[in-house]
Amino acid sequence: MKHLLDTHDLSIDDIVNILDVADRMAEVNRRQVPKVPALKGKTIATVFFEDSTRTRLSFETAARRLSADVLTFLASSSSVNKGESLRDTIETLSAMGVQAFVVRHKSSGVPLQLSQWTDASVINAGDGWHQHPTQGLLDAYTITREFGTPTSLAGRTVAIVGDIKHSRVARSNIDLFTRLGARVVLVAPPSLLPSHVETWPVDVRSTMDDVIDNVDVVYLLRMQLERMQSASIPNLAEYTRLYALTPERAAVLQDHALLMHPGPMNRGVEITVDPADVAGSRILQQVTNGVSIRMAVLFTLLGGDSVSSLTAGGEA
Amino acid sequence: MKHLLDTHDLSIDDIVNILDVADRMAEVNRRQVPKVPALKGKTIATVFFEDSTRTRLSFETAARRLSADVLTFLASSSSVNKGESLRDTIETLSAMGVQAFVVRHKSSGVPLQLSQWTDASVINAGDGWHQHPTQGLLDAYTITREFGTPTSLAGRTVAIVGDIKHSRVARSNIDLFTRLGARVVLVAPPSLLPSHVETWPVDVRSTMDDVIDNVDVVYLLRMQLERMQSASIPNLAEYTRLYALTPERAAVLQDHALLMHPGPMNRGVEITVDPADVAGSRILQQVTNGVSIRMAVLFTLLGGDSVSSLTAGGEA
Amino acid sequence: MKHLLDTHDLSIDDIVNILDVADRMAEVNRRQVPKVPALKGKTIATVFFEDSTRTRLSFETAARRLSADVLTFLASSSSVNKGESLRDTIETLSAMGVQAFVVRHKSSGVPLQLSQWTDASVINAGDGWHQHPTQGLLDAYTITREFGTPTSLAGRTVAIVGDIKHSRVARSNIDLFTRLGARVVLVAPPSLLPSHVETWPVDVRSTMDDVIDNVDVVYLLRMQLERMQSASIPNLAEYTRLYALTPERAAVLQDHALLMHPGPMNRGVEITVDPADVAGSRILQQVTNGVSIRMAVLFTLLGGDSVSSLTAGGEA
Repeated sequence: MKHLLDTHDLSIDDIVNILDVADRMAEVNRRQVPKVPALKGKTIATVFFEDSTRTRLSFETAARRLSADVLTFLASSSSVNKGESLRDTIETLSAMGVQAFVVRHKSSGVPLQLSQWTDASVINAGDGWHQHPTQGLLDAYTITREFGTPTSLAGRTVAIVGDIKHSRVARSNIDLFTRLGARVVLVAPPSLLPSHVETWPVDVRSTMDDVIDNVDVVYLLRMQLERMQSASIPNLAEYTRLYALTPERAAVLQDHALLMHPGPMNRGVEITVDPADVAGSRILQQVTNGVSIRMAVLFTLLGGDSVSSLTAGGEA
Repeated sequence: MKHLLDTHDLSIDDIVNILDVADRMAEVNRRQVPKVPALKGKTIATVFFEDSTRTRLSFETAARRLSADVLTFLASSSSVNKGESLRDTIETLSAMGVQAFVVRHKSSGVPLQLSQWTDASVINAGDGWHQHPTQGLLDAYTITREFGTPTSLAGRTVAIVGDIKHSRVARSNIDLFTRLGARVVLVAPPSLLPSHVETWPVDVRSTMDDVIDNVDVVYLLRMQLERMQSASIPNLAEYTRLYALTPERAAVLQDHALLMHPGPMNRGVEITVDPADVAGSRILQQVTNGVSIRMAVLFTLLGGDSVSSLTAGGEA
Repeated sequence: MKHLLDTHDLSIDDIVNILDVADRMAEVNRRQVPKVPALKGKTIATVFFEDSTRTRLSFETAARRLSADVLTFLASSSSVNKGESLRDTIETLSAMGVQAFVVRHKSSGVPLQLSQWTDASVINAGDGWHQHPTQGLLDAYTITREFGTPTSLAGRTVAIVGDIKHSRVARSNIDLFTRLGARVVLVAPPSLLPSHVETWPVDVRSTMDDVIDNVDVVYLLRMQLERMQSASIPNLAEYTRLYALTPERAAVLQDHALLMHPGPMNRGVEITVDPADVAGSRILQQVTNGVSIRMAVLFTLLGGDSVSSLTAGGEA
């Protein structure tokens, strides 16, 4: 395994292995000194052509806990603005010694393209509507660990609610959750469902009230401001009425049901209850798990042969 | 002591203790390798909603000398712009493992608010007109160390000159200096004095010439450009004539008197003499002491039980 | 040697010594853990008043491989915008403990000026049309190592092609290459040659076709967009016709000839062949060598007495 571009490239064994390594990383993160020398001397570049401080800082935290050096390359302050080609940028950073690129781009396929131009590893940190594989992995990690079934989601139902059509998070999660055995139900207005959704391995419902009292996980998607402004949804109040997690809907969740969201939340839009008031909310646990999953991915891609480096805690 | 939000929260013992720890940090900073492992594996986030490269770099230098990891969160490039609430931002960073937030905000009270949303420590790096406690501590440190009286400023007079009304630096300094025993004289035009100044434990004078030859410390405040443009001062030349430190005024300072300024200076406005020509200038010493004080604060809040980590110099 | 401001300040012994140290750094960079504790605890500030992500990241990578701490000071987000003088900025950063400044500025002479205001070392990372000494050194390193003649370029001919007039790279390279014994030929339209070029130790030709089949190195300069827009060149197509490296011209290069460019390339302007198709291209090797040269410069200026620190690999 050299790159992480698309969840579809991962076998079930690959997925289970990354979640296992994440357990070890979570143990590191609970230490008094949460730092190990596993990737000491390696240089990891975060290359974000689209702003996402949250995802970038999660990766940078993960890299530093493994003692890697981090180069932050923000497209807005870079020579990309001088007309340098993306290929030249990547080749230049590779020539400086970068061993892994963490790439966010608004266009689908850019991380795949970059992986053909460098000997370094490329990790897709979100590309267009296409994929966000570390989000999918951290969500699968969160659910399997909460339910105590580390290799399977068999018998579980996950409702993914909101703008499925434009969501890379939904695409990564649907692939991982269904391959781990879960039933996935999409809940969205028709205008926010993808074309040909009937070919996807999912069920579709048109309101939250159809699913809220009978699912194991409610996974809310962020409603992008730009969709609200476009014609994709005719009426924000109507969207909130039919699809938001309200206090009333939260009250009928099953006792064991989990509430999840990839963040950042649009409070008052897709969620009107305070998640702090929902016992099953794992929204902050997702963030914590995100660091462990990204450590696991970096470790697997760059240092997988040196498990002993994880036990030498505090000597980075 | 969990947070540092306001100098008023500090007892005299707290203050003297931080200045003592700063002495130890100053010793670290004089070493060939000015770095200790005291906060290794801890993550400190600088969260600046208002630009201040100077203060941010001072904190980041302090953190690195204690071997902490630093996350730089600049509001302008963050998801705060996507409408994420401040609370969600802080909770998210906490969930990633941030153990201390260093916060600058243009509104008074924001650091206090944030401290109620996180288990991490919060350090106020300046909030509105309210407080800038590490500036006050570094100034108290500078004066006590210069005068060789580490636990008291009894018998000393400090003149604070300029825009007191809008100055968080003045508020922190007045509190610390007076509680350490100094007499504080405010020198400002009436429009730049706070309402109810008569209830403050200070004297007030209306021109520099009333105080310049009889104080132990002249502390100049920065004149904010925006005040100059507003009606707060009718006439910049008049301000400079009455309140600036000119070469003539510098010449009548007592031999032992200190010149201080929190920076950055507006040369030609509040100061028309070159501080390099004033023997008592400690303006650059304040900057150097700022790193020691911020190391002392971070160490006290995050690692106060591990004094031995300061002696293991060079093994970070 | 305290500063690196101008290649003219370096003796031949200085130059050969830096290239020798770069050989040692290149060896470090080939290690499994390319990191040494040589500059542990030193703080290096990159102070860029003009954007150059490429050069800045090269210096920052070099500093981190020597275990130095890095402060990134971008003028656009700094108190320089509040009207603080350049001198106050440098004095402030020095007072925080910065031991070396890496400075890029659009005006010639700024690094020299700064060196008079600080006890720290100053490294010129490009100033106006004046000098870019680490670029010159990495280019001299690249050519001497390729030709296996580490102390001399005697008998070699280097053609520098493009906008010589406005190029600090050309000025640094002409000085270093000629003093190492090379013959330098400038290839440019008259409008892009400096005044008084006849006093420079170079030959001048007016088209690529005069030199392409008989030189040892073709060094292409970047054509700045702003020159294209100004009257400096009347016609971009004409420029490309006479001065670009086309596939046809690349085909007549001598077998041993090298192709070099300081980057970022304007593909389709000064180069229309894909450098990946030119066997002698060393454009990415220049980038790799840039890190080694910058490590050598930082080490020589800041830690030259501690060669043993280079052998303690992996213990930073």
